[in-house]
Amino acid sequence: MRNIKLLLRYDGTRYQGWQNQKNTDNTIETKLETLLSRMTGEKIEVSASGRTDAGVHAKNQVGNFKTKTNLSCEEILAQCNEFLPQDIAVLEVTEAPERFHSRLNAKGKTYSYHIWTSPIPPVFERNYVYHFPKKLDVSLMEKGASHLLGSHDFQSFCSTKPGKKSTVRSITDIEIKATETGIHLRFTGNGFLYHMVRIMVGTLIEIGLGERDAEALPSILEAKERSKAGFLAPASGLFLEEVYYEEKDL
Amino acid sequence: MRNIKLLLRYDGTRYQGWQNQKNTDNTIETKLETLLSRMTGEKIEVSASGRTDAGVHAKNQVGNFKTKTNLSCEEILAQCNEFLPQDIAVLEVTEAPERFHSRLNAKGKTYSYHIWTSPIPPVFERNYVYHFPKKLDVSLMEKGASHLLGSHDFQSFCSTKPGKKSTVRSITDIEIKATETGIHLRFTGNGFLYHMVRIMVGTLIEIGLGERDAEALPSILEAKERSKAGFLAPASGLFLEEVYYEEKDL
Repeated sequence: MRNIKLLLRYDGTRYQGWQNQKNTDNTIETKLETLLSRMTGEKIEVSASGRTDAGVHAKNQVGNFKTKTNLSCEEILAQCNEFLPQDIAVLEVTEAPERFHSRLNAKGKTYSYHIWTSPIPPVFERNYVYHFPKKLDVSLMEKGASHLLGSHDFQSFCSTKPGKKSTVRSITDIEIKATETGIHLRFTGNGFLYHMVRIMVGTLIEIGLGERDAEALPSILEAKERSKAGFLAPASGLFLEEVYYEEKDL
Repeated sequence: MRNIKLLLRYDGTRYQGWQNQKNTDNTIETKLETLLSRMTGEKIEVSASGRTDAGVHAKNQVGNFKTKTNLSCEEILAQCNEFLPQDIAVLEVTEAPERFHSRLNAKGKTYSYHIWTSPIPPVFERNYVYHFPKKLDVSLMEKGASHLLGSHDFQSFCSTKPGKKSTVRSITDIEIKATETGIHLRFTGNGFLYHMVRIMVGTLIEIGLGERDAEALPSILEAKERSKAGFLAPASGLFLEEVYYEEKDL
Protein backbone atom coordinates (compact mmCIF):
# COMPACT_ATOMS: atom_id res chain seq x y z
CA MET A 1 0.00 0.00 0.00
CA ARG A 2 1.40 3.41 -0.95
CA ASN A 3 0.86 6.50 1.19
CA ILE A 4 0.60 9.60 -0.98
CA LYS A 5 1.08 13.08 0.44
CA LEU A 6 -0.63 16.05 -1.19
CA LEU A 7 0.11 19.75 -0.93
CA LEU A 8 -3.17 21.55 -1.70
CA ARG A 9 -4.28 25.10 -2.39
CA TYR A 10 -7.89 26.17 -2.59
CA ASP A 11 -10.20 29.13 -2.71
CA GLY A 12 -12.88 28.24 -0.15
CA THR A 13 -15.45 30.78 -1.37
CA ARG A 14 -17.68 28.35 -3.27
CA TYR A 15 -17.37 25.41 -0.89
CA GLN A 16 -19.04 24.14 2.26
CA GLY A 17 -15.60 23.65 3.78
CA TRP A 18 -13.12 20.80 3.58
CA GLN A 19 -15.06 17.91 5.02
CA ASN A 20 -17.48 15.50 3.33
CA GLN A 21 -21.09 16.20 4.26
CA LYS A 22 -24.29 14.26 3.93
CA ASN A 23 -26.40 16.86 2.15
CA THR A 24 -23.96 18.26 -0.37
CA ASP A 25 -21.06 17.16 -2.53
CA ASN A 26 -19.82 20.72 -2.59
CA THR A 27 -16.83 20.23 -0.31
CA ILE A 28 -13.17 20.18 -1.16
CA GLU A 29 -12.70 16.69 0.24
CA THR A 30 -15.57 15.35 -1.89
CA LYS A 31 -14.22 16.94 -5.08
CA LEU A 32 -10.78 15.48 -4.45
CA GLU A 33 -11.91 12.00 -3.36
CA THR A 34 -14.33 11.68 -6.28
CA LEU A 35 -11.57 12.46 -8.76
CA LEU A 36 -8.90 10.31 -7.08
CA SER A 37 -11.32 7.39 -6.82
CA ARG A 38 -12.07 7.67 -10.54
CA MET A 39 -8.35 7.93 -11.35
CA THR A 40 -7.32 4.91 -9.30
CA GLY A 41 -10.42 2.73 -9.49
CA GLU A 42 -10.29 2.50 -5.68
CA LYS A 43 -12.38 4.13 -2.98
CA ILE A 44 -9.98 6.88 -1.91
CA GLU A 45 -10.24 8.70 1.42
CA VAL A 46 -8.14 11.81 1.84
CA SER A 47 -7.14 12.99 5.32
CA ALA A 48 -6.25 16.65 5.74
CA SER A 49 -4.19 18.34 8.44
CA GLY A 50 -7.44 19.87 9.63
CA ARG A 51 -10.90 20.76 8.40
CA THR A 52 -11.28 24.24 7.04
CA ASP A 53 -14.75 25.76 7.40
CA ALA A 54 -17.03 27.01 4.65
CA GLY A 55 -15.44 30.00 2.95
CA VAL A 56 -11.98 29.51 4.48
CA HIS A 57 -9.03 29.34 2.07
CA ALA A 58 -5.84 27.28 2.12
CA LYS A 59 -2.50 28.19 0.58
CA ASN A 60 -0.67 25.04 1.70
CA GLN A 61 -3.05 22.45 3.11
CA VAL A 62 -1.51 19.00 3.56
CA GLY A 63 -3.41 15.79 2.92
CA ASN A 64 -2.63 12.12 2.42
CA PHE A 65 -4.30 8.98 1.13
CA LYS A 66 -3.58 5.27 0.82
CA THR A 67 -3.63 3.64 -2.59
CA LYS A 68 -2.41 0.65 -4.61
CA THR A 69 -2.44 2.57 -7.89
CA ASN A 70 0.47 2.32 -10.31
CA LEU A 71 0.08 5.96 -11.30
CA SER A 72 3.26 7.94 -10.65
CA CYS A 73 3.21 11.03 -8.43
CA GLU A 74 3.69 13.16 -11.55
CA GLU A 75 0.67 11.56 -13.21
CA ILE A 76 -1.50 12.08 -10.12
CA LEU A 77 -0.41 15.74 -9.98
CA ALA A 78 -1.08 16.38 -13.66
CA GLN A 79 -4.46 14.62 -13.71
CA CYS A 80 -5.61 16.38 -10.53
CA ASN A 81 -4.82 19.80 -11.94
CA GLU A 82 -6.42 18.92 -15.25
CA PHE A 83 -9.71 17.71 -13.79
CA LEU A 84 -10.20 19.56 -10.51
CA PRO A 85 -12.22 22.79 -10.54
CA GLN A 86 -10.01 25.86 -11.10
CA ASP A 87 -10.37 26.94 -7.48
CA ILE A 88 -8.64 23.80 -6.17
CA ALA A 89 -5.03 23.00 -7.09
CA VAL A 90 -2.57 20.29 -6.15
CA LEU A 91 0.87 21.84 -5.71
CA GLU A 92 2.88 18.71 -4.91
CA VAL A 93 2.37 14.96 -4.84
CA THR A 94 4.99 12.89 -3.02
CA GLU A 95 5.45 9.40 -1.66
CA ALA A 96 5.17 9.47 2.17
CA PRO A 97 6.32 6.94 4.76
CA GLU A 98 3.66 4.32 5.49
CA ARG A 99 2.84 5.78 8.92
CA PHE A 100 2.60 9.43 7.89
CA HIS A 101 -0.79 10.95 8.73
CA SER A 102 -1.44 14.54 7.72
CA ARG A 103 -3.57 15.33 10.79
CA LEU A 104 -2.15 13.13 13.54
CA ASN A 105 1.48 14.02 12.74
CA ALA A 106 0.94 17.75 12.39
CA LYS A 107 3.03 19.62 14.97
CA GLY A 108 1.58 23.04 14.26
CA LYS A 109 0.14 25.49 11.77
CA THR A 110 0.20 29.08 10.61
CA TYR A 111 -3.03 30.86 9.74
CA SER A 112 -3.28 34.34 8.28
CA TYR A 113 -6.19 36.76 8.41
CA HIS A 114 -6.70 39.80 6.20
CA ILE A 115 -8.75 42.76 7.39
CA TRP A 116 -9.50 45.34 4.68
CA THR A 117 -9.95 48.67 6.48
CA SER A 118 -9.70 50.98 3.47
CA PRO A 119 -12.93 52.80 2.56
CA ILE A 120 -12.24 51.79 -1.06
CA PRO A 121 -14.13 48.52 -1.47
CA PRO A 122 -11.99 45.44 -2.19
CA VAL A 123 -12.92 44.54 -5.78
CA PHE A 124 -10.32 41.97 -6.80
CA GLU A 125 -9.70 40.96 -3.16
CA ARG A 126 -13.37 40.77 -2.11
CA ASN A 127 -13.39 37.02 -1.42
CA TYR A 128 -10.06 37.04 0.42
CA VAL A 129 -10.54 39.70 3.07
CA TYR A 130 -12.92 40.87 5.75
CA HIS A 131 -14.11 44.30 4.63
CA PHE A 132 -14.22 46.32 7.83
CA PRO A 133 -13.80 50.00 6.89
CA LYS A 134 -12.98 51.43 10.31
CA LYS A 135 -9.80 52.68 11.93
CA LEU A 136 -8.01 50.05 14.01
CA ASP A 137 -5.15 50.81 16.39
CA VAL A 138 -2.46 48.26 15.57
CA SER A 139 -0.47 48.94 18.75
CA LEU A 140 -3.51 48.16 20.92
CA MET A 141 -4.07 44.97 18.92
CA GLU A 142 -0.43 44.00 19.47
CA LYS A 143 -0.82 44.56 23.20
CA GLY A 144 -3.87 42.31 23.19
CA ALA A 145 -2.10 39.66 21.09
CA SER A 146 0.80 39.51 23.56
CA HIS A 147 -1.58 38.05 26.16
CA LEU A 148 -2.56 35.24 23.76
CA LEU A 149 1.02 34.08 23.23
CA GLY A 150 2.09 30.97 25.10
CA SER A 151 0.09 28.03 26.46
CA HIS A 152 -3.46 28.73 27.59
CA ASP A 153 -6.82 27.08 27.84
CA PHE A 154 -8.55 28.67 24.84
CA GLN A 155 -12.10 27.50 25.68
CA SER A 156 -13.27 31.14 25.54
CA PHE A 157 -12.03 31.24 21.94
CA CYS A 158 -13.78 28.08 20.80
CA SER A 159 -17.26 27.67 19.32
CA THR A 160 -17.77 24.11 20.57
CA LYS A 161 -19.03 23.55 24.09
CA PRO A 162 -16.57 22.24 26.68
CA GLY A 163 -16.12 18.47 26.48
CA LYS A 164 -13.58 15.94 27.58
CA LYS A 165 -10.94 16.98 25.08
CA SER A 166 -8.28 19.44 26.18
CA THR A 167 -8.72 22.99 24.96
CA VAL A 168 -5.18 23.95 25.90
CA ARG A 169 -3.11 25.17 22.97
CA SER A 170 0.21 26.98 22.55
CA ILE A 171 0.57 30.01 20.33
CA THR A 172 4.21 30.58 19.46
CA ASP A 173 3.91 33.68 17.30
CA ILE A 174 1.44 36.40 16.35
CA GLU A 175 2.38 38.98 13.74
CA ILE A 176 0.23 42.05 13.13
CA LYS A 177 1.18 44.24 10.20
CA ALA A 178 -0.44 47.36 8.81
CA THR A 179 -0.60 47.31 5.01
CA GLU A 180 -1.70 49.86 2.44
CA THR A 181 -5.29 48.66 2.58
CA GLY A 182 -5.65 47.12 6.01
CA ILE A 183 -4.14 44.78 8.55
CA HIS A 184 -2.64 41.34 8.06
CA LEU A 185 -2.39 38.97 11.01
CA ARG A 186 -0.46 35.70 11.23
CA PHE A 187 -0.94 33.16 14.02
CA THR A 188 1.43 30.25 14.54
CA GLY A 189 0.78 27.57 17.13
CA ASN A 190 0.70 23.87 17.88
CA GLY A 191 -2.99 23.65 17.11
CA PHE A 192 -6.16 25.71 16.86
CA LEU A 193 -9.64 24.95 18.19
CA TYR A 194 -12.86 25.28 16.19
CA HIS A 195 -13.23 28.97 15.15
CA MET A 196 -10.29 29.90 17.40
CA VAL A 197 -8.42 32.12 14.92
CA ARG A 198 -11.59 33.93 13.85
CA ILE A 199 -12.64 34.59 17.47
CA MET A 200 -9.14 35.85 18.32
CA VAL A 201 -9.35 38.17 15.30
CA GLY A 202 -12.82 39.40 16.31
CA THR A 203 -11.57 40.08 19.82
CA LEU A 204 -8.45 41.88 18.57
CA ILE A 205 -10.64 44.00 16.27
CA GLU A 206 -12.77 45.08 19.24
CA ILE A 207 -9.53 45.96 21.06
CA GLY A 208 -8.23 47.85 18.00
CA LEU A 209 -11.46 49.87 17.93
CA GLY A 210 -10.97 50.81 21.59
CA GLU A 211 -14.20 49.03 22.53
CA ARG A 212 -12.42 46.48 24.66
CA ASP A 213 -9.34 46.78 26.88
CA ALA A 214 -6.23 44.85 25.78
CA GLU A 215 -5.54 44.16 29.45
CA ALA A 216 -8.84 42.30 29.77
CA LEU A 217 -7.51 39.36 27.77
CA PRO A 218 -6.08 37.36 30.68
CA SER A 219 -9.46 37.40 32.42
CA ILE A 220 -11.23 36.45 29.17
CA LEU A 221 -8.93 33.41 28.92
CA GLU A 222 -9.51 32.54 32.58
CA ALA A 223 -13.30 32.72 32.22
CA LYS A 224 -13.30 29.76 29.78
CA GLU A 225 -16.57 31.03 28.38
CA ARG A 226 -17.15 31.74 24.71
CA SER A 227 -19.43 34.69 25.54
CA LYS A 228 -16.56 36.59 27.17
CA ALA A 229 -14.53 36.82 23.94
CA GLY A 230 -15.22 38.93 20.87
CA PHE A 231 -17.22 38.31 17.72
CA LEU A 232 -16.53 35.62 15.14
CA ALA A 233 -14.69 37.31 12.25
CA PRO A 234 -15.96 36.12 8.85
CA ALA A 235 -14.45 33.14 7.04
CA SER A 236 -13.47 35.03 3.88
CA GLY A 237 -10.40 36.65 5.50
CA LEU A 238 -8.89 33.40 6.78
CA PHE A 239 -6.11 31.39 5.10
CA LEU A 240 -4.45 28.20 6.27
CA GLU A 241 -0.90 29.17 5.36
CA GLU A 242 1.37 26.33 6.48
CA VAL A 243 1.28 23.00 8.28
CA TYR A 244 4.40 21.91 10.18
CA TYR A 245 5.52 18.36 10.81
CA GLU A 246 8.73 19.21 12.67
CA GLU A 247 8.76 20.89 16.07
CA LYS A 248 11.69 23.03 14.96
CA ASP A 249 9.58 24.73 12.26
CA LEU A 250 7.16 26.16 14.81
CA MET B 1 -26.60 70.68 -15.42
CA ARG B 2 -23.81 69.09 -13.38
CA ASN B 3 -21.10 66.95 -14.92
CA ILE B 4 -20.02 64.20 -12.54
CA LYS B 5 -16.75 62.34 -12.97
CA LEU B 6 -16.38 58.78 -11.69
CA LEU B 7 -13.29 56.74 -10.95
CA LEU B 8 -14.31 53.10 -11.31
CA ARG B 9 -12.81 49.72 -10.52
CA TYR B 10 -14.27 46.43 -11.67
CA ASP B 11 -13.64 42.74 -12.01
CA GLY B 12 -14.76 41.99 -15.57
CA THR B 13 -15.02 38.22 -15.11
CA ARG B 14 -18.82 38.05 -14.80
CA TYR B 15 -19.68 40.76 -17.32
CA GLN B 16 -20.20 41.06 -21.05
CA GLY B 17 -17.88 44.07 -21.06
CA TRP B 18 -18.46 47.74 -20.33
CA GLN B 19 -20.99 48.69 -22.95
CA ASN B 20 -24.78 48.40 -22.92
CA GLN B 21 -26.05 45.60 -25.13
CA LYS B 22 -29.41 44.69 -26.55
CA ASN B 23 -29.60 41.09 -25.39
CA THR B 24 -28.26 41.33 -21.87
CA ASP B 25 -28.23 43.68 -18.92
CA ASN B 26 -25.05 42.03 -17.72
CA THR B 27 -22.68 44.85 -18.56
CA ILE B 28 -20.92 47.25 -16.26
CA GLU B 29 -22.45 50.29 -17.95
CA THR B 30 -25.95 48.87 -17.50
CA LYS B 31 -25.40 48.10 -13.82
CA LEU B 32 -24.12 51.59 -13.20
CA GLU B 33 -26.73 53.46 -15.26
CA THR B 34 -29.60 51.49 -13.76
CA LEU B 35 -28.48 52.38 -10.26
CA LEU B 36 -27.69 56.04 -11.01
CA SER B 37 -31.03 56.47 -12.79
CA ARG B 38 -32.83 55.07 -9.77
CA MET B 39 -30.83 57.30 -7.41
CA THR B 40 -31.43 60.51 -9.35
CA GLY B 41 -34.83 59.87 -10.89
CA GLU B 42 -33.30 60.81 -14.26
CA LYS B 43 -32.28 58.72 -17.24
CA ILE B 44 -28.53 58.64 -16.68
CA GLU B 45 -26.01 57.80 -19.41
CA VAL B 46 -22.45 57.16 -18.33
CA SER B 47 -19.59 57.64 -20.78
CA ALA B 48 -16.37 55.77 -20.10
CA SER B 49 -12.85 56.50 -21.34
CA GLY B 50 -13.21 53.40 -23.48
CA ARG B 51 -15.15 50.17 -23.69
CA THR B 52 -13.54 47.22 -22.02
CA ASP B 53 -14.37 43.83 -23.51
CA ALA B 54 -16.02 40.89 -21.81
CA GLY B 55 -13.75 39.56 -19.07
CA VAL B 56 -11.40 42.57 -19.07
CA HIS B 57 -10.80 44.28 -15.71
CA ALA B 58 -10.32 47.92 -14.78
CA LYS B 59 -8.37 49.32 -11.85
CA ASN B 60 -9.00 52.98 -12.64
CA GLN B 61 -11.58 53.42 -15.36
CA VAL B 62 -12.87 56.98 -15.75
CA GLY B 63 -16.48 57.80 -16.55
CA ASN B 64 -18.75 60.84 -16.47
CA PHE B 65 -22.44 61.65 -16.60
CA LYS B 66 -24.72 64.70 -16.72
CA THR B 67 -27.31 65.17 -13.99
CA LYS B 68 -29.51 67.72 -12.24
CA THR B 69 -29.56 65.76 -8.98
CA ASN B 70 -29.06 67.50 -5.64
CA LEU B 71 -27.18 64.51 -4.26
CA SER B 72 -23.67 65.41 -3.13
CA CYS B 73 -20.64 63.62 -4.57
CA GLU B 74 -20.19 61.90 -1.20
CA GLU B 75 -23.78 60.64 -1.29
CA ILE B 76 -23.39 59.34 -4.85
CA LEU B 77 -20.17 57.56 -3.86
CA ALA B 78 -21.67 55.97 -0.75
CA GLN B 79 -24.89 54.85 -2.46
CA CYS B 80 -23.03 53.42 -5.45
CA ASN B 81 -20.80 51.30 -3.24
CA GLU B 82 -23.74 50.20 -1.14
CA PHE B 83 -25.90 49.06 -4.03
CA LEU B 84 -23.52 48.03 -6.83
CA PRO B 85 -22.49 44.36 -7.05
CA GLN B 86 -19.31 43.64 -5.07
CA ASP B 87 -17.26 43.30 -8.24
CA ILE B 88 -17.85 46.93 -9.23
CA ALA B 89 -16.67 49.80 -7.05
CA VAL B 90 -16.69 53.56 -7.32
CA LEU B 91 -13.40 54.92 -5.99
CA GLU B 92 -14.05 58.65 -6.42
CA VAL B 93 -16.91 60.95 -7.38
CA THR B 94 -16.02 64.55 -8.28
CA GLU B 95 -17.59 67.56 -9.92
CA ALA B 96 -16.09 68.02 -13.42
CA PRO B 97 -16.07 71.07 -15.71
CA GLU B 98 -19.12 71.19 -17.97
CA ARG B 99 -17.18 70.24 -21.07
CA PHE B 100 -15.23 67.33 -19.61
CA HIS B 101 -15.82 64.08 -21.50
CA SER B 102 -14.15 60.92 -20.25
CA ARG B 103 -13.58 59.47 -23.71
CA LEU B 104 -13.09 62.50 -25.95
CA ASN B 105 -10.69 64.23 -23.55
CA ALA B 106 -8.56 61.17 -22.80
CA LYS B 107 -4.96 61.76 -23.86
CA GLY B 108 -3.75 58.25 -23.19
CA LYS B 109 -3.96 55.08 -21.15
CA THR B 110 -1.95 52.38 -19.46
CA TYR B 111 -2.99 48.74 -19.72
CA SER B 112 -1.34 45.86 -17.89
CA TYR B 113 -1.33 42.19 -18.79
CA HIS B 114 -0.48 39.30 -16.49
CA ILE B 115 0.86 36.03 -17.88
CA TRP B 116 1.06 33.20 -15.31
CA THR B 117 3.85 30.90 -16.48
CA SER B 118 4.32 28.90 -13.28
CA PRO B 119 3.30 25.23 -13.50
CA ILE B 120 1.47 25.75 -10.18
CA PRO B 121 -2.07 26.67 -11.21
CA PRO B 122 -3.24 30.18 -10.23
CA VAL B 123 -5.90 29.50 -7.61
CA PHE B 124 -6.56 32.91 -6.08
CA GLU B 125 -5.37 34.70 -9.23
CA ARG B 126 -7.22 32.51 -11.74
CA ASN B 127 -9.53 35.24 -13.06
CA TYR B 128 -6.80 37.86 -13.28
CA VAL B 129 -4.12 36.16 -15.34
CA TYR B 130 -3.59 34.18 -18.51
CA HIS B 131 -2.40 30.75 -17.41
CA PHE B 132 0.29 29.85 -19.91
CA PRO B 133 2.67 27.38 -18.22
CA LYS B 134 5.59 27.58 -20.65
CA LYS B 135 9.01 29.18 -20.53
CA LEU B 136 9.12 32.63 -22.11
CA ASP B 137 12.33 34.50 -22.88
CA VAL B 138 11.81 37.99 -21.48
CA SER B 139 14.78 39.48 -23.32
CA LEU B 140 13.38 38.32 -26.68
CA MET B 141 10.00 39.81 -25.72
CA GLU B 142 11.71 43.09 -24.86
CA LYS B 143 13.44 43.11 -28.24
CA GLY B 144 10.07 42.61 -29.91
CA ALA B 145 8.42 45.28 -27.79
CA SER B 146 11.07 47.83 -28.78
CA HIS B 147 9.74 47.71 -32.36
CA LEU B 148 6.23 48.56 -31.18
CA LEU B 149 7.31 51.75 -29.41
CA GLY B 150 6.58 55.02 -31.17
CA SER B 151 3.95 55.94 -33.76
CA HIS B 152 2.82 53.22 -36.13
CA ASP B 153 -0.20 52.11 -38.09
CA PHE B 154 -1.39 49.26 -35.85
CA GLN B 155 -3.93 47.80 -38.32
CA SER B 156 -2.16 44.41 -38.02
CA PHE B 157 -2.89 44.53 -34.29
CA CYS B 158 -6.58 45.33 -34.59
CA SER B 159 -9.53 42.94 -34.82
CA THR B 160 -11.76 45.33 -36.79
CA LYS B 161 -11.39 45.51 -40.56
CA PRO B 162 -9.74 48.60 -42.07
CA GLY B 163 -12.16 51.53 -42.39
CA LYS B 164 -11.95 55.26 -42.75
CA LYS B 165 -10.72 55.87 -39.21
CA SER B 166 -7.01 56.17 -38.61
CA THR B 167 -5.34 53.15 -37.07
CA VAL B 168 -2.18 55.10 -36.25
CA ARG B 169 -1.36 55.12 -32.55
CA SER B 170 1.65 56.06 -30.44
CA ILE B 171 3.01 53.78 -27.75
CA THR B 172 5.19 55.72 -25.35
CA ASP B 173 6.23 52.94 -22.99
CA ILE B 174 6.25 49.15 -22.69
CA GLU B 175 7.47 47.51 -19.49
CA ILE B 176 8.07 43.76 -19.30
CA LYS B 177 8.91 42.35 -15.92
CA ALA B 178 9.51 38.78 -14.78
CA THR B 179 7.79 38.02 -11.47
CA GLU B 180 7.83 35.00 -9.19
CA THR B 181 4.96 33.38 -11.06
CA GLY B 182 5.11 34.86 -14.52
CA ILE B 183 5.46 37.99 -16.58
CA HIS B 184 3.77 41.36 -16.15
CA LEU B 185 3.51 43.72 -19.09
CA ARG B 186 2.48 47.39 -19.09
CA PHE B 187 1.63 49.35 -22.22
CA THR B 188 1.24 53.12 -22.20
CA GLY B 189 0.10 55.03 -25.27
CA ASN B 190 -2.16 57.72 -26.66
CA GLY B 191 -4.82 55.19 -27.56
CA PHE B 192 -5.37 51.53 -28.31
CA LEU B 193 -7.40 49.88 -31.09
CA TYR B 194 -9.91 47.08 -30.63
CA HIS B 195 -8.01 44.05 -29.18
CA MET B 196 -4.70 45.82 -29.76
CA VAL B 197 -3.11 45.09 -26.36
CA ARG B 198 -4.19 41.45 -26.43
CA ILE B 199 -2.82 40.92 -29.96
CA MET B 200 0.47 42.61 -29.00
CA VAL B 201 0.67 40.28 -25.98
CA GLY B 202 -0.10 37.22 -28.13
CA THR B 203 2.59 38.24 -30.60
CA LEU B 204 5.14 38.89 -27.84
CA ILE B 205 4.34 35.48 -26.32
CA GLU B 206 5.10 33.81 -29.67
CA ILE B 207 8.37 35.75 -29.75
CA GLY B 208 9.14 34.75 -26.15
CA LEU B 209 8.60 31.10 -27.09
CA GLY B 210 11.09 31.45 -29.95
CA GLU B 211 8.35 30.64 -32.49
CA ARG B 212 8.54 34.04 -34.10
CA ASP B 213 11.49 36.38 -34.69
CA ALA B 214 11.52 39.66 -32.75
CA GLU B 215 13.01 41.30 -35.84
CA ALA B 216 9.92 40.38 -37.88
CA LEU B 217 7.83 43.00 -36.06
CA PRO B 218 8.53 45.93 -38.41
CA SER B 219 7.29 43.89 -41.37
CA ILE B 220 4.22 42.75 -39.41
CA LEU B 221 3.39 46.41 -38.79
CA GLU B 222 3.99 47.29 -42.43
CA ALA B 223 1.73 44.50 -43.66
CA LYS B 224 -1.33 46.13 -42.05
CA GLU B 225 -2.99 42.73 -41.97
CA ARG B 226 -4.39 41.15 -38.82
CA SER B 227 -3.35 37.69 -39.98
CA LYS B 228 0.34 38.62 -39.88
CA ALA B 229 0.33 39.26 -36.11
CA GLY B 230 0.09 36.73 -33.28
CA PHE B 231 -2.85 35.20 -31.44
CA LEU B 232 -5.39 37.09 -29.35
CA ALA B 233 -4.36 36.65 -25.70
CA PRO B 234 -7.35 36.00 -23.42
CA ALA B 235 -9.27 38.80 -21.71
CA SER B 236 -8.71 37.55 -18.15
CA GLY B 237 -5.13 38.81 -17.98
CA LEU B 238 -5.93 42.38 -19.10
CA PHE B 239 -6.38 45.40 -16.82
CA LEU B 240 -7.12 48.99 -17.72
CA GLU B 241 -4.73 50.60 -15.24
CA GLU B 242 -4.90 54.36 -15.79
CA VAL B 243 -6.49 56.97 -18.02
CA TYR B 244 -4.58 60.23 -18.61
CA TYR B 245 -6.13 63.61 -19.34
CA GLU B 246 -2.86 65.57 -19.49
CA GLU B 247 -0.24 65.04 -22.19
CA LYS B 248 2.48 65.33 -19.57
CA ASP B 249 1.29 62.18 -17.75
CA LEU B 250 1.91 59.98 -20.77
